[in-house]
Amino acid sequence: MKKIAVSIGDLNGIGIELALRNHTSLSKAAEIYYCIDQTMLAQAANLLHIPIPENFQTVENSAAPFTIQPGTIDAQSGAYSYASFQKAVNMAKESEVDAIVTLPIHKKAWELAGISYKGHTDALRDLFDAEAIMMLGCPQMYVALFTEHIPLRDVANSITETDLTRFLLDFYQTLKPQNSVAVLGVNPHAGDGGVLGDEERIIEKAIQNAHCSIGYHIFDGPLVPDVAFIPQTRAHYTHYIAMYHDQGLAPLKALYFDEGINISLNLPILRTSVDHGTAFDIAYSGSKLSSLSYQNAIKYILESAIIQ
Amino acid sequence: MKKIAVSIGDLNGIGIELALRNHTSLSKAAEIYYCIDQTMLAQAANLLHIPIPENFQTVENSAAPFTIQPGTIDAQSGAYSYASFQKAVNMAKESEVDAIVTLPIHKKAWELAGISYKGHTDALRDLFDAEAIMMLGCPQMYVALFTEHIPLRDVANSITETDLTRFLLDFYQTLKPQNSVAVLGVNPHAGDGGVLGDEERIIEKAIQNAHCSIGYHIFDGPLVPDVAFIPQTRAHYTHYIAMYHDQGLAPLKALYFDEGINISLNLPILRTSVDHGTAFDIAYSGSKLSSLSYQNAIKYILESAIIQ
Repeated sequence: MKKIAVSIGDLNGIGIELALRNHTSLSKAAEIYYCIDQTMLAQAANLLHIPIPENFQTVENSAAPFTIQPGTIDAQSGAYSYASFQKAVNMAKESEVDAIVTLPIHKKAWELAGISYKGHTDALRDLFDAEAIMMLGCPQMYVALFTEHIPLRDVANSITETDLTRFLLDFYQTLKPQNSVAVLGVNPHAGDGGVLGDEERIIEKAIQNAHCSIGYHIFDGPLVPDVAFIPQTRAHYTHYIAMYHDQGLAPLKALYFDEGINISLNLPILRTSVDHGTAFDIAYSGSKLSSLSYQNAIKYILESAIIQ
Repeated sequence: MKKIAVSIGDLNGIGIELALRNHTSLSKAAEIYYCIDQTMLAQAANLLHIPIPENFQTVENSAAPFTIQPGTIDAQSGAYSYASFQKAVNMAKESEVDAIVTLPIHKKAWELAGISYKGHTDALRDLFDAEAIMMLGCPQMYVALFTEHIPLRDVANSITETDLTRFLLDFYQTLKPQNSVAVLGVNPHAGDGGVLGDEERIIEKAIQNAHCSIGYHIFDGPLVPDVAFIPQTRAHYTHYIAMYHDQGLAPLKALYFDEGINISLNLPILRTSVDHGTAFDIAYSGSKLSSLSYQNAIKYILESAIIQ
């Protein structure tokens, strides 16, 4: 049975409720370690009126306990969520677990706690000094992003043969895909033979380079971006590589918003995450939560052949 | 009952089959004039083994009859489809009909026939010397494109306050929307307060200008592009304005590929079109065709309050 460390996220948000409510079903398939101490767990469970499941295994971290204030941006809660994340990362680094799942943190709470990272992925890149690949999606469709959080005007110039070749090879090495992977073009109609932009030539060259190195054909493209996500094309692919943020994420979220997860690839450890935030507006309120994203984050690890 | 002229498209393609098969049901709601002469109609119906409906009203055009060769790119067929389109446009210009629906032409066949336009919209812009607005979609969701067929690297610089203000006002004037219209940002997270690009300031200013001129609030935005198409956001909007081609069309086609139509707004005449091509590979083959796009193209006119 695979071992997974779950960092508990911001305890003023919905993460702990997701962990408690889904433990019984998920623990049948995985050995889960929750990076939260007994005091904080008891406090949260009490506030939520959810009994703590018997085999709910906790792991202490270095942060001080504090009083949970549902839906509040708070430095202590920020510090706690970072310490929980650090603990989970260390467990994976030390091979005590196979992978980690992160529950949502609040960026502002990290900032208040004096933590300079903008989020988990940012922190992981720095902690491992590695070119993490961000991939989002669900079993029907995953999208890896070649460029991420940059202005649209900088996208075209960021597509270089060297960088894209390296990205494709990293993607291949870390995922070892069994089926063809769709690589998107960047311009309307994939440039229409150069009339609407010529970055597709660079993409073609990078794909060729990658195939030369891999030894066989695995990347299809550059695909026409607005046709790549129609049902007939989706029937051929589970994995896409998008050249920029909204190119991949707008169709993905249009189709599979509630189910999506965020996966960090190409790091010494495997990390998945829910693709939603702390939902402070409904935390500890009794509102019904969707667990699909959290369940998929766990399932991805169980079904993954990736061994870091 | 509204009057509609249908240009028959490339007769070597699937357009005429769509017209014949859907006539009986559509003619209950609209008075349709098909821009095809009796000889060509008889030839196509014979090849298709479809009887010509009794009240199938034809209108002659200036092109010479020719021998239909299913699935073939042909100069005579190109010339015929252009003459049929010209006839439909003229009927609308002369107010003999309320609007026109165009069946698909083949660009290469137009080129072989010496017609320099790349397609219907291109021709309409030139014929009317007007800033046509291209809108695509179906009753659940329409997307109008602020920029269309330009390289992605040129998008950011094309967003100017003057042009976007004019576009928003043209859109408002031609459609008179009853409900709020979603205007997309251009950068990831709509710029995240300027950190990921600052074109959103221009979009905000253009929206303000448009509201000043209109006198009330109708445009929401700039919306975060990858969140704009999730189900929860779509519940609020039927009409979107996208800053560039794939931003709007990738989510639209992911969700509603078979149903989509193409609408030319802000012209002296109203024109709708199927959002698919001539499908030469299945023309006259007995393959089952989807009529959804054609039916929606007709319905849009019937339900439209737009009077040119």
